[in-house]
Amino acid sequence: MIDPFHESIGIIAAILTTSSFIPQVFKIYKEKKAQGVSLTMYLIMFVGVLLWLVYGILIGSFAIIIANSVTAILQLFVIIFKLKN
Amino acid sequence: MIDPFHESIGIIAAILTTSSFIPQVFKIYKEKKAQGVSLTMYLIMFVGVLLWLVYGILIGSFAIIIANSVTAILQLFVIIFKLKN
Repeated sequence: MIDPFHESIGIIAAILTTSSFIPQVFKIYKEKKAQGVSLTMYLIMFVGVLLWLVYGILIGSFAIIIANSVTAILQLFVIIFKLKN
Repeated sequence: MIDPFHESIGIIAAILTTSSFIPQVFKIYKEKKAQGVSLTMYLIMFVGVLLWLVYGILIGSFAIIIANSVTAILQLFVIIFKLKN
């Protein structure tokens, strides 16, 4: 069990790093293109994010679980978009 | 103290997510432009990464400390580049 004060710092960190990824996803959706972003890079990142999720569950870190769940969903959106276009 | 097996999963996750950021930094350096990437977004992300670093130190996670130290250095490079151009 992680100290609630420590966990709150992790949650603020999660909100900042995850939310900074949202404008990029919106941009891809709006412009209907995701150039300059390679599929390979996104797939590597996606596997990494899934491993972070496993790590978060194993060490019981709520901040890591939340941050990587949201990021995984956003990245899956970009990957599906790249595969369809 | 985090279980070494759990920590090794975190380290593989760290290598995957951090290394996927490197081509972007190289691209910015090579093309001498970082358009489509806003300074505000990078600053928010940078503060987030520093908080993840604090969180990693507080909970004793080597994977989080390593991943966010390297990412912070890469982002600092992009921020300095954006400020100079």
